[in-house]
Amino acid sequence: MLFALDAMGGDNAPEAPCRGAILACGENPNISVALVGIRDRIERYIHDAEASVVSRVSIVNASEVIGMGDNPASSIRSKKNSSLRVAIEMVRSREATGCISAGNTGAIVAGGVLVAGRIKGIDRPALAIPIPSLKGLSLLLDVGATVRCKPINLFQFAHMGSIYMRSLSGVERPSVGLFSNGAEEIKGDDVIGEAREMLAASSLNFSGFVEGNLLPIGGTDVVVCDGFTGNALIKFGEGIGEFVKTLIREEIGKRFIPKIGAALMMPALREIWARFEYEKNGGSPLLGVDGIVIKAHGNSGPNAIAGALRVAYSFARLKGTDLIKESFES
Amino acid sequence: MLFALDAMGGDNAPEAPCRGAILACGENPNISVALVGIRDRIERYIHDAEASVVSRVSIVNASEVIGMGDNPASSIRSKKNSSLRVAIEMVRSREATGCISAGNTGAIVAGGVLVAGRIKGIDRPALAIPIPSLKGLSLLLDVGATVRCKPINLFQFAHMGSIYMRSLSGVERPSVGLFSNGAEEIKGDDVIGEAREMLAASSLNFSGFVEGNLLPIGGTDVVVCDGFTGNALIKFGEGIGEFVKTLIREEIGKRFIPKIGAALMMPALREIWARFEYEKNGGSPLLGVDGIVIKAHGNSGPNAIAGALRVAYSFARLKGTDLIKESFES
Repeated sequence: MLFALDAMGGDNAPEAPCRGAILACGENPNISVALVGIRDRIERYIHDAEASVVSRVSIVNASEVIGMGDNPASSIRSKKNSSLRVAIEMVRSREATGCISAGNTGAIVAGGVLVAGRIKGIDRPALAIPIPSLKGLSLLLDVGATVRCKPINLFQFAHMGSIYMRSLSGVERPSVGLFSNGAEEIKGDDVIGEAREMLAASSLNFSGFVEGNLLPIGGTDVVVCDGFTGNALIKFGEGIGEFVKTLIREEIGKRFIPKIGAALMMPALREIWARFEYEKNGGSPLLGVDGIVIKAHGNSGPNAIAGALRVAYSFARLKGTDLIKESFES
Repeated sequence: MLFALDAMGGDNAPEAPCRGAILACGENPNISVALVGIRDRIERYIHDAEASVVSRVSIVNASEVIGMGDNPASSIRSKKNSSLRVAIEMVRSREATGCISAGNTGAIVAGGVLVAGRIKGIDRPALAIPIPSLKGLSLLLDVGATVRCKPINLFQFAHMGSIYMRSLSGVERPSVGLFSNGAEEIKGDDVIGEAREMLAASSLNFSGFVEGNLLPIGGTDVVVCDGFTGNALIKFGEGIGEFVKTLIREEIGKRFIPKIGAALMMPALREIWARFEYEKNGGSPLLGVDGIVIKAHGNSGPNAIAGALRVAYSFARLKGTDLIKESFES
């Protein structure tokens, strides 16, 4: 499978996307990557890879770059030769099975909607990310595609999330919760209240409101919120991971913990705080668009890019887009 | 100073409020507490306290209780003899310096507004909570009083937060950030965009947008958001604390870390995860109402109640209410 990777997107571009592509191709012989971007700035990073990998890494030249501060919709419209737009065009033309970018989130979403197109029946797309909990993974969506939602958006996110989670986890009827500021029915606002009624009357396995403290505890397969809230939560989790990591380092220094204890403890702690880097563990599929569009963390290194390629590959194998299309078209 | 404590509010009432009152009075000879609630259910918990403490703990009988699921405004209006309403009435009549409740958040806010009354010029109140960061404490508000906000609400929260943080920390011009889903000006929604313009044009030391990952990293003294977002963040942080605590316990079991290493490590880790229990470390003053009204965590134990009494005492000493009144009336 060929994936188009925006080689110019993200804080560490083009080096991280290039090295991430080589990593992913090295791991999985079924993955090929087209690095989309400014050829001169990409070539140097793929020279030194093994021959078996290099044969699966190609370059597609694209002369423009969409920056982090660019207006999403207008840059996607006007920068026709930008690495992001060209990568999404390759999905639309079916040249590529999917595309990945660590660039401007708004532009990725705008590109998904304007270039790949929405699935018929879907009002707005959602970025979905699996987050770890004590009871396994929960799928949280939206984490940043649709900043503010109407009830119908939350309702559709619940359906898309349920379909995706079923294919990811094998659970036949994933439980679906609506994120709110309390478990009681009177919580939330008008939008959330209306979405709650729609979900309660639907065929989904709806379990009611989910409060923030229950997300890491787990127990709900799919948790739905607007893109502002979802983004706030995953970024905050990431920041707490940093906070914990730094404090533990300081405490180890301060308390004269026997070196052997600390040395044995650190790998465990590193594993724990790595779980907070939700986006760096993979990348978020943009659900609701007609094709595979994966957003990677803006600060992705090579491992995070390779993780996003893995997500794209698994999404393609699970036929995530087709499943959503079938459900919404019927 | 006499504080009215809602002895029937919270998951662990009346035992936790009673024991918390005894703890706080034991620590600080300047604190007296009126336990407001059903006398028969309270008395048994204060019999065994020391004489020097018991003399500062009284009971004010109130026969009704507002439950967690009760409608906030209508229960405050109709349950005139509820422990929460009676406690707030004692603030209005100046019998008590302030009141504390671990009960129904909405009812505490409604009671603050309807019974204590808003400070002239304030549209809506905000619950403020200091959260730990790598660079010291930041004050986050609103964490649940005003679920959805107009720009003027966020603007007023920024002013109130700045005043409170100045008195708490001694920083002359606290930096104020507006919580958003990205640092770039195009982020947020219309409400946040308009609030941003108002803040940029104000006399406050406004530093722009703050993203979720920067909250635990720190660097901004006051961070403003709507009550839905603030509640989501503090609850999520609390859940992550639980998550980390459980995982570390499991890892210690799994990895055969030398007992001495783990034993030395655990107090440090306990300290770290305790920092995520934001509300249990104190309680949130309801800023913008005419009197001291402190919300404690619904699941408060005696220590958390004593912490909330400490916050009430410090707020009274700092004359938090008067400072906000002076600023908004001028």
